[in-house]
Amino acid sequence: MIKHVNVKTGARVDLIDITSEIEGLVEESEVGEGVCYLYVPHTTAGITINEGADPSVRRDIIHTLQKIVPRDAGYAHMEGNSDAHIKSSLVGTSTIVLIEQGRLQLGTWQSIFFCEFDGPRDRRVAVKIMGSKEP
Amino acid sequence: MIKHVNVKTGARVDLIDITSEIEGLVEESEVGEGVCYLYVPHTTAGITINEGADPSVRRDIIHTLQKIVPRDAGYAHMEGNSDAHIKSSLVGTSTIVLIEQGRLQLGTWQSIFFCEFDGPRDRRVAVKIMGSKEP
Amino acid sequence: MIKHVNVKTGARVDLIDITSEIEGLVEESEVGEGVCYLYVPHTTAGITINEGADPSVRRDIIHTLQKIVPRDAGYAHMEGNSDAHIKSSLVGTSTIVLIEQGRLQLGTWQSIFFCEFDGPRDRRVAVKIMGSKEP
Repeated sequence: MIKHVNVKTGARVDLIDITSEIEGLVEESEVGEGVCYLYVPHTTAGITINEGADPSVRRDIIHTLQKIVPRDAGYAHMEGNSDAHIKSSLVGTSTIVLIEQGRLQLGTWQSIFFCEFDGPRDRRVAVKIMGSKEP
Repeated sequence: MIKHVNVKTGARVDLIDITSEIEGLVEESEVGEGVCYLYVPHTTAGITINEGADPSVRRDIIHTLQKIVPRDAGYAHMEGNSDAHIKSSLVGTSTIVLIEQGRLQLGTWQSIFFCEFDGPRDRRVAVKIMGSKEP
Repeated sequence: MIKHVNVKTGARVDLIDITSEIEGLVEESEVGEGVCYLYVPHTTAGITINEGADPSVRRDIIHTLQKIVPRDAGYAHMEGNSDAHIKSSLVGTSTIVLIEQGRLQLGTWQSIFFCEFDGPRDRRVAVKIMGSKEP
């Protein structure tokens, strides 16, 4: 079964830490060993795993993506959000995290971030947890 | 079992919408709930999920990737396609889409694109569908 | 069960071919048909699949990533490794490879590379192999 995490983004480009919501769904699932699939059903957003402790890392990711893919660069697409589509393809719309002993096997410094590239908006992440119940 | 989708690309850099071919394989599989894994076995191509409605989005992705990773930039690799290898690592060689009620759970605007970075060529995408038969 | 591959990187930015280690784990697992999940639990590293035959491809990937995300660019994060975090999000922290007849279904020219962006260091890759035992 697919579950959803709702995300309210606060700026045009924004990284939102959704780790605890995903951890909650893993606990609910009672899967001991398996894989957690995270999927973003939007074309101007993405998902990444990166450092969660220092918020300046998020800021640096956002600023650098803006430099690599500027908002205005003579794009053909007329909706003014081509940069957001391109960022989505660079960062990716899905990721996985392994599960063992009922817990996400994130590294010490890793958090899961929803990446908004054309907000602020109401968004969602589809979550599927597959595996066996025993730990 | 792994199935393959054959893709004929039409330019050196090209994004080809393969959504309907993948949907066909999901139907054939009769999997109701699961995961569809898409894997590109090439080193100068990739796969991405992005907007399918307006073809100008595809053009903007192609043009921006060309700006970020120019075709000629004094590369060491002598085959003249280093840019294509680099684009492959930025976009990625695999992706997943969740399946529910026997259908790919793509977002409203999402299509699946094979990304050619060193064409035109005959390419293929490996597709594996795992899950349970009941919807 | 999750297995780990240990990787010793030799430079600040480095691509290490870990294909044979992953192939070894697939053989050990005796899984005939399935999926191999590769996960990097670090925030300044990544994983990619690309050409393994010519080492100059690796060098071109490294040099181009350095151009796209320079080491020094007035980052907010004070540890001097913001570029490494950003590269990690561009390349990604996980990938999958399909398994058939007990073997990784890599393309002819594909190798699996651990991507170090803030080394040299001792790193590791988490590997999970799921599938059925029969080939």
